[in-house]
Amino acid sequence: MKKFINNIDSLLEESLQGFAKAHADIVNYNADPHIISRVKPTPSGKVALISGGGSGHEPLHCGFVGTGMLDAACPGQIFTSPTPDQMLTAAQTVESGGGVLFIVKNYAGDVMNFEIAAEMLDCPNATVLVNDDVSLAKDHSTGRRGVAGTLIVEKIVGAAAERGYDLMACQALGERVNQNTASMGVALTSCTVPALGKPTFTLAENEMEMGVGIHGERGRSTLPLTHASEIVEHIADIIQDELKPALGQTALLHINGFGGTPLLELHLIYQLAAQYWEQRGVKLCRSLVGNYTTSLDMAGCSITLSLLDAEMLELWDAPVHTAALRWGC
Amino acid sequence: MKKFINNIDSLLEESLQGFAKAHADIVNYNADPHIISRVKPTPSGKVALISGGGSGHEPLHCGFVGTGMLDAACPGQIFTSPTPDQMLTAAQTVESGGGVLFIVKNYAGDVMNFEIAAEMLDCPNATVLVNDDVSLAKDHSTGRRGVAGTLIVEKIVGAAAERGYDLMACQALGERVNQNTASMGVALTSCTVPALGKPTFTLAENEMEMGVGIHGERGRSTLPLTHASEIVEHIADIIQDELKPALGQTALLHINGFGGTPLLELHLIYQLAAQYWEQRGVKLCRSLVGNYTTSLDMAGCSITLSLLDAEMLELWDAPVHTAALRWGC
Repeated sequence: MKKFINNIDSLLEESLQGFAKAHADIVNYNADPHIISRVKPTPSGKVALISGGGSGHEPLHCGFVGTGMLDAACPGQIFTSPTPDQMLTAAQTVESGGGVLFIVKNYAGDVMNFEIAAEMLDCPNATVLVNDDVSLAKDHSTGRRGVAGTLIVEKIVGAAAERGYDLMACQALGERVNQNTASMGVALTSCTVPALGKPTFTLAENEMEMGVGIHGERGRSTLPLTHASEIVEHIADIIQDELKPALGQTALLHINGFGGTPLLELHLIYQLAAQYWEQRGVKLCRSLVGNYTTSLDMAGCSITLSLLDAEMLELWDAPVHTAALRWGC
Repeated sequence: MKKFINNIDSLLEESLQGFAKAHADIVNYNADPHIISRVKPTPSGKVALISGGGSGHEPLHCGFVGTGMLDAACPGQIFTSPTPDQMLTAAQTVESGGGVLFIVKNYAGDVMNFEIAAEMLDCPNATVLVNDDVSLAKDHSTGRRGVAGTLIVEKIVGAAAERGYDLMACQALGERVNQNTASMGVALTSCTVPALGKPTFTLAENEMEMGVGIHGERGRSTLPLTHASEIVEHIADIIQDELKPALGQTALLHINGFGGTPLLELHLIYQLAAQYWEQRGVKLCRSLVGNYTTSLDMAGCSITLSLLDAEMLELWDAPVHTAALRWGC
């Protein structure tokens, strides 16, 4: 394992300190328990958005804390759920009279710990469960995983909260975005979790893992590595079949790198995926290409299509000021 | 080699098409020769800033085209200099009466081709040569290489041009930023150039390449991989010795990932480097952490310190609207 590390036990702590110092104009850092919260206080009466999950997916979620997106994030250890005391501390830090909306990716540990926090919390709260990964069947025993579509939920609901939507309206909007968002990933290599010190899985030089999760979980099948066009068509067919966009439907196309794949290749994937949907009459009105929901150093990417109505589009365009997404302010 | 590719010969073309489509609100794409230029026309009389270099370093330079930074970029083939016809076409596209400033990283091919273009150009033009890589000695036979500090030159001079600085003032400012900027990198793995199909160099599991260039050129020495703190101190000592910042000096600290290193580790490196200079009385007033000047999929990073006076700081903070850097607008 070749990584920049002093000590596996202090890696997350030192990294969060660095993140908070590099972005001191946007975030505060609470060391015990680990919380990243916005510097600019949550306006009185605004719904406070809190997300979190295992670390190793940076910039998700801490990089999305700031005006117009999350009020706080709870980073767990690498690929490990945060604990309820983190959510409770986060809520105490940012709740400002509008209640708390938890945005939770569908993983058993995250769901359980956010549920415990929700039950203990003495203010109005609600949860949006994100499960945009269509590589698993809809009726899969643990449900579908929450992956790169999560940031779209966080961005759109973040803008709505900033505009004064109440808790129930934010929750309903988050569920609507989630239902209209589908993602699927493919890995060319495994990631290496520092505490494990070796790749999570192995792939031969001519193989790719289709439908991979953001922790390197196996998805649909190990397939022979093929041309980028075929890979994109394989994934896009599954997303298309899931969302069935109407002719003329406006949509956001998000190509997300898992960490180890160069932007050069991600833009190639974007080009191919954009052609796919343009040929099917989808109007790609917004785009996002880059490493946003990563899996440490895994090579690979995911494709996310999110169908946007006029309200969602306006909220996507609304000002956001975070470490990793920034426009309009 | 495991990459998302259809065909090595069409990779750059397809990737540029995707980049331009994903950022159609910011850039135009000219296919022959390859040019990325700003959508919003260069204001009349403004100095037109043009940069370029081999591809494979994305988002450098195409990702920095837009209001407040570059007017155009000339992407060469991967790790290959762009050709004079690209610079000439770029100049014809964006020159608006204020002349052209070329910002060129110090590599023999780039320098030669930009010089040829400068000689052929029939409008006032000047060049800033960036050579911020202090891993090589000042009197090295080919001079020092231009690396991650280039974006700092492009950002600050871009803001100055937008404010109406004339050609000579922009050039002088660019040289001042370059002289006050020092960078040095370390690689944990090689990158793999698609046309080559195998790693450029090999490192043992317990080795790192200290002073590596952004094409994987060997720098100072192959050393045993050690703790992040020792790596940072090694690099920071060389930068400190070069720039000799005064007590209380304001500076920008830029941690640049080479592509294959997770943000989690880059923020750890930031934390250690920030501690180093804070202990030496440097006031780190601005920060930039992420993959900005990459080397395809190479794991590793560089540390850049840029001493900023009040003018440079104000210009760094000025609005910028590009694919990869965006604030204030």
